[in-house]
Amino acid sequence: MGLIVQKFGGSSVKDKECLMRVAKTVTDTYKAGNQVVVVVSAQGDTTDELIEKANEINPRASKREMDMLLSTGEQISIALLSMAIDKLGCPVVSLTGWQAGFVTRSNHGAARIRRIETERLKRELDNNNIVVVAGFQGLNRFDDITTLGRGGSDTSAVALAAALHADRCQIFTDVEGVYTADPRIVKNAVKLDEITYDEMLELASLGAGVLHNRSVEMAKKYHVNLEVLSSIVNKPGTIVKEAVKMEKLLIKGVAKDEDVARIAVIGLPDTPGIAFKIFSLLASRKINVDIILQSIGRHNTKDISFTVPLADKDTAIELLQEKFDILGAERIEAEDDIVKVSIVGAGMQSNPGVAAKMFEALYDANINIQMISTSEIKISVLIARKDADRAVIAVHDAFDFNEK
Amino acid sequence: MGLIVQKFGGSSVKDKECLMRVAKTVTDTYKAGNQVVVVVSAQGDTTDELIEKANEINPRASKREMDMLLSTGEQISIALLSMAIDKLGCPVVSLTGWQAGFVTRSNHGAARIRRIETERLKRELDNNNIVVVAGFQGLNRFDDITTLGRGGSDTSAVALAAALHADRCQIFTDVEGVYTADPRIVKNAVKLDEITYDEMLELASLGAGVLHNRSVEMAKKYHVNLEVLSSIVNKPGTIVKEAVKMEKLLIKGVAKDEDVARIAVIGLPDTPGIAFKIFSLLASRKINVDIILQSIGRHNTKDISFTVPLADKDTAIELLQEKFDILGAERIEAEDDIVKVSIVGAGMQSNPGVAAKMFEALYDANINIQMISTSEIKISVLIARKDADRAVIAVHDAFDFNEK
Repeated sequence: MGLIVQKFGGSSVKDKECLMRVAKTVTDTYKAGNQVVVVVSAQGDTTDELIEKANEINPRASKREMDMLLSTGEQISIALLSMAIDKLGCPVVSLTGWQAGFVTRSNHGAARIRRIETERLKRELDNNNIVVVAGFQGLNRFDDITTLGRGGSDTSAVALAAALHADRCQIFTDVEGVYTADPRIVKNAVKLDEITYDEMLELASLGAGVLHNRSVEMAKKYHVNLEVLSSIVNKPGTIVKEAVKMEKLLIKGVAKDEDVARIAVIGLPDTPGIAFKIFSLLASRKINVDIILQSIGRHNTKDISFTVPLADKDTAIELLQEKFDILGAERIEAEDDIVKVSIVGAGMQSNPGVAAKMFEALYDANINIQMISTSEIKISVLIARKDADRAVIAVHDAFDFNEK
Repeated sequence: MGLIVQKFGGSSVKDKECLMRVAKTVTDTYKAGNQVVVVVSAQGDTTDELIEKANEINPRASKREMDMLLSTGEQISIALLSMAIDKLGCPVVSLTGWQAGFVTRSNHGAARIRRIETERLKRELDNNNIVVVAGFQGLNRFDDITTLGRGGSDTSAVALAAALHADRCQIFTDVEGVYTADPRIVKNAVKLDEITYDEMLELASLGAGVLHNRSVEMAKKYHVNLEVLSSIVNKPGTIVKEAVKMEKLLIKGVAKDEDVARIAVIGLPDTPGIAFKIFSLLASRKINVDIILQSIGRHNTKDISFTVPLADKDTAIELLQEKFDILGAERIEAEDDIVKVSIVGAGMQSNPGVAAKMFEALYDANINIQMISTSEIKISVLIARKDADRAVIAVHDAFDFNEK
C-alpha cells in the first residue's frame, strides 16, 4: 500500500481495447489499496497527425502555437482513459498539465520542468480519486502551454513521483523490462531484475530505447524508485534504483545505437589548440560529440575523427567547411554507414578482462573495430552497420547472462 | 477603425482551404486598422467524432470528462488558425477559453458565462496582436474546463464583444445574412439590412437557424452591435441592433420550425387547475411548451393540446401517462408530422391586417391551420409537415418583401 505513479505511452492507449486494458491495470493497482497517479501520452499517431496538419498550413509555425496544438493530444487521452476507469467503477479525475501544477521554463517545444505545484493533485488523491495527468506538457510564467519535448511523458511521470514522494514510478512500455540486449536481435537476451541509474543512463544513451535519458537523470537526482514493465503482460519488470543487489553479473547489457555518424577532419597542422577549435565550434551549435579519436597523420599532420548524432551530421560538416581555411585541414570526410555497439555494467571498472573478452568476441566474428571509447561503466565500439546485429549476438554470447 | 470581434463556425474552419480563407478575412480587417478578436469553433465534424470516441468507451461518461475531451476541438482550431494568420504576416496569439478569462458556472456541458477577466486579452491587443480565442469553453471555480453547450461559440463571441466594448461583433455563417425566408425554399427571399434583437429572437427560436437565441439575448442585454454575414462572399450582412431605420416592411421574415411535436390530452374533466397540473408537470422536467390550445370536448370535458420540441415528446408522454389517473383524462394523442410556420416583425402589432393576410395566403394555397399562436411581433401557425414549404412560399409571396 502506497502512492504509485504509472506512465503509459501512446501505443498503450491507442484505441478502445488498449485504453480498457490500461484502465484494468490502473484500477487493479487502486483496488489493491494504493493511491494511483497515471500519466499518459497522446494516442498512437495523434501527435504526428497534428504535426502534419500544422505543416500543411504553415511549415514555419511558431513553437508556441505548435505546443497549443500538440497538447490537445494528451488532453484527449486523459479524458478517454478517465472514462474507461470510471466505467470500471473507480473514482477518477483527469488533469491537464497546467491543472496538475506543472510549471515549466518559458521556451516552447522543449521546456524543462521548474516545479510542480501539487495542491490540486494532493486534494484529488485525498478525495480517493485516481488522478489521470496529461504527460509532456506544462504551463510557463506567461500562462502559455508548453511541451517538454522528446521523452516528455516519462519525464512528467518521474517529476510527479519526485514531487509527491511516490513509493514507485512504473513506466509501462511494449517490452517486459530492461534486457541484456535487444530481444528482437539476441534470442537468449535476459530480462534484468534490477539495474542502477548510471547503468540505465548508459544503456538509454546507447540506444536501448526503453527510457529517455532525461527521465532517468531526474529519477537519479530525486531518488525515484523506477520500474520499467510491460503494458501487456502482467509481471514484474526491471527496477532502476541507486544500489542493486550484489550479483554475479559484471555486465548488464549489450546495446546498439544506430543514430551515429562519423566525421573525420584529415591533415590538420600539428599545433596546439586545434582540437579545442573544432569542438568549441560544434559546441556553439549544441552538437553533441561522442567518441573522439586523434591520430598522427603523414607529414607532421593530425587527423581528428569523432561521432555525432545522425541529424547533426550535415550541420557539423557545414560548420567545419566554413572554418576550413582557419583550421588548415586537408579535407573532411563523413560516414554514416556505422553503428555503435556497447556493453554496460557497473561491475566492469574493477575487472580488466571485460574489454578483452568483448574485443575477442568481435575478432572471432571477424568484425572490424573502427573506434573505441570507454568509461567506468561502459565500453563502446564503432563498427560497420552491416555487422551490427552479428556483433550484438557475438558480444552477448561471450558473457554469461543466462547463468545468473 | 475600432475593435471588432469575428466569429467563425466549424464549417468555416473545416480544412486548410477554409482556414486560409478565414485568415484572409481576419487579416484584411486587421490591416484596415482595426483591433481584431477572432472566436472559432471546432473544425467540421471534430466534436461529433470525439463524442463517438467517448461513447465507444463509456456511454455514460461524466460531463466533466466530456468537457475535457470536447474542449480540445476548439483548441486545435485556434492553433491552426493562428498558424494561418501568421503565414499571412500578421502578429497573432491564440488563447484557450481559460486563457481568455472565461469564467463560467460550475455545471458541465451547458455552463453559463459568469464573467470574462479581460486583462490578458487587453494586453495581447495592446501588443498589436490579433487574438484567436477558443469558443464554446471556459473555466469554472474548481479550475475545471467547462463547455457552454449548444450555440456556445456564438455566445462566446457576443460575451467577448460585450466585455471588451467592441464596436461590432460579426458572426460569419454559411448564409449571407438574415433573410425574409429560407432562400433554399423561397426563391425570391430577400436579405435584410437590419433587424431588431426581438425580431431576431423570434426568428431564431422559430427555426431560422442563423443565430442561437442565447447569443441574441446576450447581445440585446449588453447592446452589442451584431452582424450576421457570409464567410464565403465578401459583402455586408444583416445588422442586428436595438433601433432600426424606419422602413416600409411590417414583416421581417417567414420562418419554418420542424423541431416540433403536438401532444393532445383528450377528455379531461372540466375542473379548475387541470391546465396548471399538466404544465407544472412538464416544467418540472424543463420541457418547453410552446403553442397551447384549450377546447371544449364532448360531455363537459376539455381537450388540451400543446407543442413541445421533438426531443421532449417521449418524455412528455411518459410523464403524462404516469399521472394519467390523477389527471382523469380519456386518452393522450401525439403527432410529429407537423411544422410551425411563423411571420415576424415589430411593425405588425399596430397593423391588424397582417394576420388576415397570412391566413388568406394559406387558405388560397389550400393549407389547413391546426393551431395558432400570436405575440406582439409574431404570428405562428401549426400545419402538416407536407405543406411546410408551400406554406412558406405562399406566405412570403403575400407580403411585399421585394419592394422595400
